[in-house]
Amino acid sequence: MSAPMATREIERLIQQLARLPGLGPRSARRAVLHLMKRRESLMLPLADSLREAAQKLADCGVCGNLDTSDPCGICSDLERDRAAVCVVEEIGDLWAIERSGAFRGLYHVLGGTLSALDGRGPDDLRIGDLAARVRDTGVREVILALSATVDGQTTAHYVAERLAGLDVAVTRLAHGVPVGGELDYLDDGTLSAALKARRPA
Amino acid sequence: MSAPMATREIERLIQQLARLPGLGPRSARRAVLHLMKRRESLMLPLADSLREAAQKLADCGVCGNLDTSDPCGICSDLERDRAAVCVVEEIGDLWAIERSGAFRGLYHVLGGTLSALDGRGPDDLRIGDLAARVRDTGVREVILALSATVDGQTTAHYVAERLAGLDVAVTRLAHGVPVGGELDYLDDGTLSAALKARRPA
Repeated sequence: MSAPMATREIERLIQQLARLPGLGPRSARRAVLHLMKRRESLMLPLADSLREAAQKLADCGVCGNLDTSDPCGICSDLERDRAAVCVVEEIGDLWAIERSGAFRGLYHVLGGTLSALDGRGPDDLRIGDLAARVRDTGVREVILALSATVDGQTTAHYVAERLAGLDVAVTRLAHGVPVGGELDYLDDGTLSAALKARRPA
Repeated sequence: MSAPMATREIERLIQQLARLPGLGPRSARRAVLHLMKRRESLMLPLADSLREAAQKLADCGVCGNLDTSDPCGICSDLERDRAAVCVVEEIGDLWAIERSGAFRGLYHVLGGTLSALDGRGPDDLRIGDLAARVRDTGVREVILALSATVDGQTTAHYVAERLAGLDVAVTRLAHGVPVGGELDYLDDGTLSAALKARRPA
């Protein structure tokens, strides 16, 4: 990236695209050429979509989901089970659980995990909001759907402590063999967790 | 991608980003969340850059480069060597050669290679333009900087034939050991080409 090689407009576009996760300078260059060949069918529609999403979407004040309405579509869906709240780290996790179709309650997006390394403490996450929500809105169960990493489990532990004393059941996702997973590719921790949690066949 | 999981605006954005080379549905979702957290600093500027580039940039009528002016900055730079034209497949190749700083002549972007498989014939590439350019503008040397693939070499051969009879030297890039490359990781074709083209040390 030494001497200028293209116009200012293209350079800037490459630099911006290269800031997306999964793209580096080289793939950003390829993406720009791909876009320039599809100006009407992709490049201008993408510009419009970016602007529209940036302007229309906002964080849901209740759960932290992204939507055009606040409260979001999930929080205002009266057919969902309002007594169950699934706590996730990021909106991407909420999307993943929604795709699974296995949960019909509400969500609470923390906005990350506690992390000593990154200097994220409880006040940087939406944990206080969660406690207030449980206290005030008749939630009967909080499901902690956090990553099985050290930070994720530290956060789960902290959230569970903050909810202790409130009249709510706190649960977490089961560990076990992934569906479709082969045993001899599985790590020891998962395997021993799956053994401990074995059930009648 | 079964049930809807996010709003229409986000779904559309994910689908559009997933059409970029190097991004699939999963990485497009991550990119959207990354953008939504950086609305002012990245998302809206990116929308503006896309629109500006799509509207301002056009193909140079002489060489096929992308620029805000036609002829492009390279074609209208009078300090460059106007007697040497480097023929490349795509604009990305032109950028790569410019970054190397090793060439100060002009370019000609073919727009791809001949390809029986993809049904691309000579009329789909800017080969006729190249012949006219050589005939009319005093070009002394045409350097074929095409891929060392079957299609690239077929194209190089075809272009060389089209230029035969015109008063111009047609050259091509040397094959050899990449700078920094280790011999025992090199394919046999490159190694034998480098041996054949050996020079006094």
